[in-house]
Amino acid sequence: MRPPERIRIKREPQRARYDRETIDAILDEALLCHLGFEVEGQPYVIPTLHARVGDLLYVHGSAASRMLRHAAAGARVCVTVTLLDGLVLARSVFNHSVNYRSVVVFGTASLVEGDEKREALRALTEQLAPGRWDEARQPTAKELKATWILSLPLDEASAKVRTGPEEDEPEDRDLPVWAGVVPVYLAAEPSEYAWRRVHDGRVGPPA
Amino acid sequence: MRPPERIRIKREPQRARYDRETIDAILDEALLCHLGFEVEGQPYVIPTLHARVGDLLYVHGSAASRMLRHAAAGARVCVTVTLLDGLVLARSVFNHSVNYRSVVVFGTASLVEGDEKREALRALTEQLAPGRWDEARQPTAKELKATWILSLPLDEASAKVRTGPEEDEPEDRDLPVWAGVVPVYLAAEPSEYAWRRVHDGRVGPPA
Repeated sequence: MRPPERIRIKREPQRARYDRETIDAILDEALLCHLGFEVEGQPYVIPTLHARVGDLLYVHGSAASRMLRHAAAGARVCVTVTLLDGLVLARSVFNHSVNYRSVVVFGTASLVEGDEKREALRALTEQLAPGRWDEARQPTAKELKATWILSLPLDEASAKVRTGPEEDEPEDRDLPVWAGVVPVYLAAEPSEYAWRRVHDGRVGPPA
Repeated sequence: MRPPERIRIKREPQRARYDRETIDAILDEALLCHLGFEVEGQPYVIPTLHARVGDLLYVHGSAASRMLRHAAAGARVCVTVTLLDGLVLARSVFNHSVNYRSVVVFGTASLVEGDEKREALRALTEQLAPGRWDEARQPTAKELKATWILSLPLDEASAKVRTGPEEDEPEDRDLPVWAGVVPVYLAAEPSEYAWRRVHDGRVGPPA
């Protein structure tokens, strides 16, 4: 199936993925996203927290709240999530790259209100540290009111994935240059929290 | 000095930093950035590589090249770089947060051409893996032509930094909930490349 024009990836189309399984896995693994929106001709890109619940993506919008306050109803936004997996060192400078998995979601943002807001905040909290919603004190009505959460549907989403080794030109393959991939990943330092979780027989440290 | 309106951080202003030392250190440490721009009412946020040279930020623009081709001269963009440093687990859900260092650069993108392009590509390569420009085969004229690099000045840049422990409300401090920060960082797996660099008495692995 040919994806809709807006989400179709034109550059390096062999890296494009449009299946929800791939998209969801990337969204669910990442700890942060970048929210893009435009105000009076100036694009803004703000790092924030996100969580997926079914076919909806929730984004913690407080950092953008002043700018989004009037725009939330109907503003086009873009939420991008990127996981860096490796440094791809080829034999030529030109073929250097990175291994990564990214998702771009286009959509019209809605402000989350009412009962949905509590569930969205639960998802955002669990994304940061699974199990934490039940451990920590629940939000009061006043705290919920002070929380800004945006939602957007996942029907305009695409993923882009580069995996595998470096790709050198045939004429470069015998150059005396080391080539390969240096894997990188987000690591959590051992902490009392992680230790307690393992000690209690619960799941390991977050991240 | 009061920063100009556009770059002034209104949300959590105590986290704002406007000094170039802080801004440069974040830009120089990060391995990727998110480039935001707008085309016909739709914001786009694309992960890409960046490097700073003095007062200029170079951004690898190939992934956005089709969209930016006509807009490069005069398009307003936003480049955001975010380093995640820790998961801040407070005693209340509401005070959960992350420790991070981010930079937002607003500017008008210019396409880099001529001799500057080679130097910009050198900087992008060195940002990915220091020393790699001299190790790998240099770009040909054809390869340089196929490379799209944007530059923008750093005169509309701001940083935002959260560090330190969780911040609980006074009435929550005695709750029986573990609170603290779980430090996170980007780690590089041992690789033949890293090993060779150490073995050769050169600097350690990238990242």
